[in-house]
Amino acid sequence: MRCPLVTLTTDFGLRDSYVAEMKAVILGISPNATVVDITHQIDKFDVKMGAYVLASASHLFPEGTVHVAVVDPGVGTRRRPIIVQTGKGFFVGPDNGVLALAVKSIDGKTRVYSITNSKLMLPKVSSTFHGRDIFAPAAAHLVKGIRPTEFGPEIYQMISPKFAQIIRRREALEGQVIHIDDFGNIVTSFTEKELETMKTKDKLGVKVGNTDLRLKLCKAYADVKVQQPLAIIGSHNFLEISVNQGDAASTFKVTIEDRVVLTRSD
Amino acid sequence: MRCPLVTLTTDFGLRDSYVAEMKAVILGISPNATVVDITHQIDKFDVKMGAYVLASASHLFPEGTVHVAVVDPGVGTRRRPIIVQTGKGFFVGPDNGVLALAVKSIDGKTRVYSITNSKLMLPKVSSTFHGRDIFAPAAAHLVKGIRPTEFGPEIYQMISPKFAQIIRRREALEGQVIHIDDFGNIVTSFTEKELETMKTKDKLGVKVGNTDLRLKLCKAYADVKVQQPLAIIGSHNFLEISVNQGDAASTFKVTIEDRVVLTRSD
Amino acid sequence: MRCPLVTLTTDFGLRDSYVAEMKAVILGISPNATVVDITHQIDKFDVKMGAYVLASASHLFPEGTVHVAVVDPGVGTRRRPIIVQTGKGFFVGPDNGVLALAVKSIDGKTRVYSITNSKLMLPKVSSTFHGRDIFAPAAAHLVKGIRPTEFGPEIYQMISPKFAQIIRRREALEGQVIHIDDFGNIVTSFTEKELETMKTKDKLGVKVGNTDLRLKLCKAYADVKVQQPLAIIGSHNFLEISVNQGDAASTFKVTIEDRVVLTRSD
Repeated sequence: MRCPLVTLTTDFGLRDSYVAEMKAVILGISPNATVVDITHQIDKFDVKMGAYVLASASHLFPEGTVHVAVVDPGVGTRRRPIIVQTGKGFFVGPDNGVLALAVKSIDGKTRVYSITNSKLMLPKVSSTFHGRDIFAPAAAHLVKGIRPTEFGPEIYQMISPKFAQIIRRREALEGQVIHIDDFGNIVTSFTEKELETMKTKDKLGVKVGNTDLRLKLCKAYADVKVQQPLAIIGSHNFLEISVNQGDAASTFKVTIEDRVVLTRSD
Repeated sequence: MRCPLVTLTTDFGLRDSYVAEMKAVILGISPNATVVDITHQIDKFDVKMGAYVLASASHLFPEGTVHVAVVDPGVGTRRRPIIVQTGKGFFVGPDNGVLALAVKSIDGKTRVYSITNSKLMLPKVSSTFHGRDIFAPAAAHLVKGIRPTEFGPEIYQMISPKFAQIIRRREALEGQVIHIDDFGNIVTSFTEKELETMKTKDKLGVKVGNTDLRLKLCKAYADVKVQQPLAIIGSHNFLEISVNQGDAASTFKVTIEDRVVLTRSD
Repeated sequence: MRCPLVTLTTDFGLRDSYVAEMKAVILGISPNATVVDITHQIDKFDVKMGAYVLASASHLFPEGTVHVAVVDPGVGTRRRPIIVQTGKGFFVGPDNGVLALAVKSIDGKTRVYSITNSKLMLPKVSSTFHGRDIFAPAAAHLVKGIRPTEFGPEIYQMISPKFAQIIRRREALEGQVIHIDDFGNIVTSFTEKELETMKTKDKLGVKVGNTDLRLKLCKAYADVKVQQPLAIIGSHNFLEISVNQGDAASTFKVTIEDRVVLTRSD
């Protein structure tokens, strides 16, 4: 027996009843779903943080999982509610970028649908709580096997927020610092997928902030000497610039949203 | 396959082992139950907040759900542990008002039982943790199909805390402000059920604090002009006094526990 | 139908994706497991607090439950990842003492295995997150019925941290204060098991801090007069020194890690 999985990533906190209301709706429609919290403590309205945390966890869930992310400063405005169908599972949320990092890291074709079919929403849709009224029912209907085409028209393209954009310039790729972790590791918006297009084996030119580096692409921090910089696909699936047993962010005076440029360097 | 649902609402926080102890007891007795947290961050001993959050979420859960609420400043004293049987499901907790708002909003007959049968409790009942020793086992036995009459005598009446009392005076109904939300919407103790007894169609006389209002009973905030007041059954199932795109609580200088009087106004 | 249970006790907090990553791994390997959080708010690296909270909750879970505890300041160093097999279920975590209080309170033979078989870990094991890469897969494989002998060699002995050690001196037992609760009750490292070896019926000599006491071994706080001290096996399964309706810790000027010596006193 396999219970279909639904994950939740929101900025609702754990004090109010919001998260439980979403779970009530999901379990009412799809009683045998298993709901897993990714987190409900995204900083209020911080779409980029939501996108990063969702991408960090979602790639580990089994195929077919439905991921719901609701960090939604534009709720009640015209931003579209969407479903993204990927080879790994579904992503459900507002079309404001919160799904972008998770979707971008998945290989293969993705399809994007606008959720417009009110028969697959709660009978009364509020203008303030689409998590409960639109996204939770959508996730529950998806795990029950309703096809994404039933929810609304395919829209071919989701919004690509600046923090998820990879700009290709000749031999170079330009991305962004999306997170700096507790150890000072610099997490960039590049995934293994983009790295493969660089066709580099083990050396990488990296410009981050004002520093030009030539880094070894490592499997472990200890692949370079202590206090030496390195590049590594971190455990959250993004390319990290790190210093072995050091703090890369302070060493290179890098902060979140800084530009990162990759070049081949073999 | 449908897993029977048990929800938990407490002021235990998430740092200690208390919530897990309740879940251990429930899953030990009823292994196929699904336990959903409503919240464990009710302010310590704030029975009214517990009652409001429970009522906000519980009405969305499927029929047959067992809701446990433990905000219990009187644990170890004579206050009774009770089970309330309603047309929608069961409510389990101390008889101190924490169940009152949720139960009051449900149509139809309710029956109240005192939990006295020690065979349906843990073997050793502490005087400090009835959540684990009495309420968790009661919920687990209920989802297994034990009838509420097995737990103890019917007591016909639960305590009605001041914040849940609706006083009927001729054509008027008197209730209370039970919550003011982040937007300044004034949440009252009236539910759709009481509103129906008013036999009003779309206008309502409302006295709240020192202000007399004549309000349109709306389906959406935008049914009146910007900055105009309105009455609406909010998404948590209670009558709200709101100002379209404004802050009703500051506009009308209203605070929690203020009296609210409704009159017909057609 | 019985879902196998896995519990999680960590110092990861609820803001990041770490806990969800562990759950993703567990549910990927063992889709019908039910995962229950004990807490994720152990103070960072506080092994003793982790050990205490785990022991407080774990004894209430059904037989066969797999308990995972990750409070792991030594992750990436040589401390061993272990599985402890007991008559009640399995305990999985670093061999740094975090499992010691829970395991110690269980009667009967325990067996300890070092986790070395990389086929039962994630393909890529990071040096920073063994919770996800080693402990979560181990728990998931255990609930699927993989025998503990498959994970690695039996090592016969786990680390016994100072806070879990009971030293036997002739007629006396020496332990420690492991926790002081909100009421000032002094929780010691002694369990019912050690008390039984004392062959005392109802009186106990207790030296705690600088105070020598002769205490009645009670079933309830109210078994002695108000403001009188007593000894009791508390609801978390440890011997507590308490004062009926009083604060034992301040009365006897006792603090955490103080030595406690028990003697027979019949």
